[in-house]
Amino acid sequence: MAKPPSLAPLALSMGEPAGIGGEIALKAWLARARGVAPFVAIDDPERLSALARRLGLEVPVRTVAGPEEAAGAFAEALPVLALPLARPARPGRPDPANAPAVIAAIDRAVALTLAGRAAAVVTNPIQKKTLIEAGFAHPGHTEYLAELAKAAGPPVMMLVGPSLRVVPVTVHIPLARVLAELSTDSIVTKGRIAARALEVDFGIAAPRLAVSGLNPHAGEEGTMGREEIEMIAPAIAELARQGIRAFGPLPADTLFTEAARRTFDAALCMYHDQALIPLKTLDFERGVNVTLGLPFVRTSPDHGTALDIAGTGRASAESLIAALDLAREMAARRQARAARAGLA
Amino acid sequence: MAKPPSLAPLALSMGEPAGIGGEIALKAWLARARGVAPFVAIDDPERLSALARRLGLEVPVRTVAGPEEAAGAFAEALPVLALPLARPARPGRPDPANAPAVIAAIDRAVALTLAGRAAAVVTNPIQKKTLIEAGFAHPGHTEYLAELAKAAGPPVMMLVGPSLRVVPVTVHIPLARVLAELSTDSIVTKGRIAARALEVDFGIAAPRLAVSGLNPHAGEEGTMGREEIEMIAPAIAELARQGIRAFGPLPADTLFTEAARRTFDAALCMYHDQALIPLKTLDFERGVNVTLGLPFVRTSPDHGTALDIAGTGRASAESLIAALDLAREMAARRQARAARAGLA
Repeated sequence: MAKPPSLAPLALSMGEPAGIGGEIALKAWLARARGVAPFVAIDDPERLSALARRLGLEVPVRTVAGPEEAAGAFAEALPVLALPLARPARPGRPDPANAPAVIAAIDRAVALTLAGRAAAVVTNPIQKKTLIEAGFAHPGHTEYLAELAKAAGPPVMMLVGPSLRVVPVTVHIPLARVLAELSTDSIVTKGRIAARALEVDFGIAAPRLAVSGLNPHAGEEGTMGREEIEMIAPAIAELARQGIRAFGPLPADTLFTEAARRTFDAALCMYHDQALIPLKTLDFERGVNVTLGLPFVRTSPDHGTALDIAGTGRASAESLIAALDLAREMAARRQARAARAGLA
Repeated sequence: MAKPPSLAPLALSMGEPAGIGGEIALKAWLARARGVAPFVAIDDPERLSALARRLGLEVPVRTVAGPEEAAGAFAEALPVLALPLARPARPGRPDPANAPAVIAAIDRAVALTLAGRAAAVVTNPIQKKTLIEAGFAHPGHTEYLAELAKAAGPPVMMLVGPSLRVVPVTVHIPLARVLAELSTDSIVTKGRIAARALEVDFGIAAPRLAVSGLNPHAGEEGTMGREEIEMIAPAIAELARQGIRAFGPLPADTLFTEAARRTFDAALCMYHDQALIPLKTLDFERGVNVTLGLPFVRTSPDHGTALDIAGTGRASAESLIAALDLAREMAARRQARAARAGLA
């Protein structure tokens, strides 16, 4: 077999054009001297050029026919696969008329990646409410991607920062529904997907998974809730039976100290804020949202459309740059693994 | 009126003698050159001397008759109000036979403070299970203190670290019971007690109180839970009506970033881990547990008895030292305020 080819560029979707997506794409390209992973923006080239001018960013925008052209162009210009907007984007004011383009950018990023022409999907944040007004009938960005990819299992969200990786078992649901949605099965399923990803995508040979409790002090031996004993401990036992180095349930409040973080590769948490509070408290600027359980690599910056500062030039591209870098790293590992499998 | 007298020493209770309380008391005294607040230990002098010898800590222990004697003695020796144990303490192995002494130490610290002979109560951690085995019939340390003090309202727990102050509205209850116990009233009551304490005990003129949401993204305008709209926002409005600078409800995951922390003096959180995760993640070593709503100042280190490392010499006294320092600071403010009131 031939040596595996070098990595294709990453496909970066437009996201909500009234948000900060365009600005951070321009700023990520400007940071290319730092070694930012080459990407192709799926966006409206005219709006990106106009935005660069308005923000005083020296970014030549070059329309390309496909990702193949983007890699060579990246050193000199921001390569863009043209997807014209229906109406000019106004910062801070999402327009449902542009929703089809927002969705088409996601579709195209996924199609290029599934076809092997892009290495991974990196998505800019969308404004869910605006898409729903325009008829988008999916619970969220991630669920839509899972549908496009015809994924077999549930997509799993992992948040990755420089000092912590977390996986919430339940995610965007009211706190009152956490108990109803949480089960030994869901903990085992997400734990297994997380452990597998740590191995395959992050290159960690025998990943250690710290599992949090649900209650204060992890229930304190059943005196403050019995979910640790009846639901979480059996899930940990089952993960261990499957050969995964899972341990806990651990009190969530002391799980994220510097010393505790050294004992695990990812923390499996029971609900959104239990996972997101420590991640954002420690790593606000450089957090990356990773979707596990898809047939391709997908990352995104760990922030929203930031409509309040869109167009002001104040947006930080750090999270997007981290998302691009991590997507490249994960895609390279998958490609190398596939090449080894082909050779075997 | 006369000039207010200098501050009396702090009364430090023994806590569980099989835990690290004795060791950190010895180490706090050794740190007196750093300006640690003078305190008198209510403890068994023989066990403290023996412990110092075993750990190789050069701490002369001096039995005193009352706190009045302790202030003068503090520079040369660790002053101790003698409270003999029924049986020798064995590190890591709590003995219910010593429970009466553990409780008597708390009682004495409170009595001395209520009588004005000690400036504040600082408590070493207790082993609740051992006390319960010996017949202690109170839900916890704090509730017991509130009972001794015949406090009018509920005691309120505030955790204070170098970079964050948090007040959980619900505390040591299963997560499943949070919704049942949380109410507009309880948020208002605890918010008011917290704001008052920030003013009186922390010397902050017009304290700003950030109020967290309960659900992911603070419910995202009601799409992920309605408690923010129906319960928390009305509480904030009522606090504002009472002249308190409360604002929110804010998404808990972005509430503890460095930039966000600069916007408030304390965060009022809806449940234990929402408050304790950021506090312990940021300030593990120097966190202090403060009980508000008592007729005296009470602080304690923000850790347990640490039976697993008791007797090894590995315990850090940083949290106790911070608890002593904060108790002195709070007591001095109350004393100065009382003196001003007397002069007025």
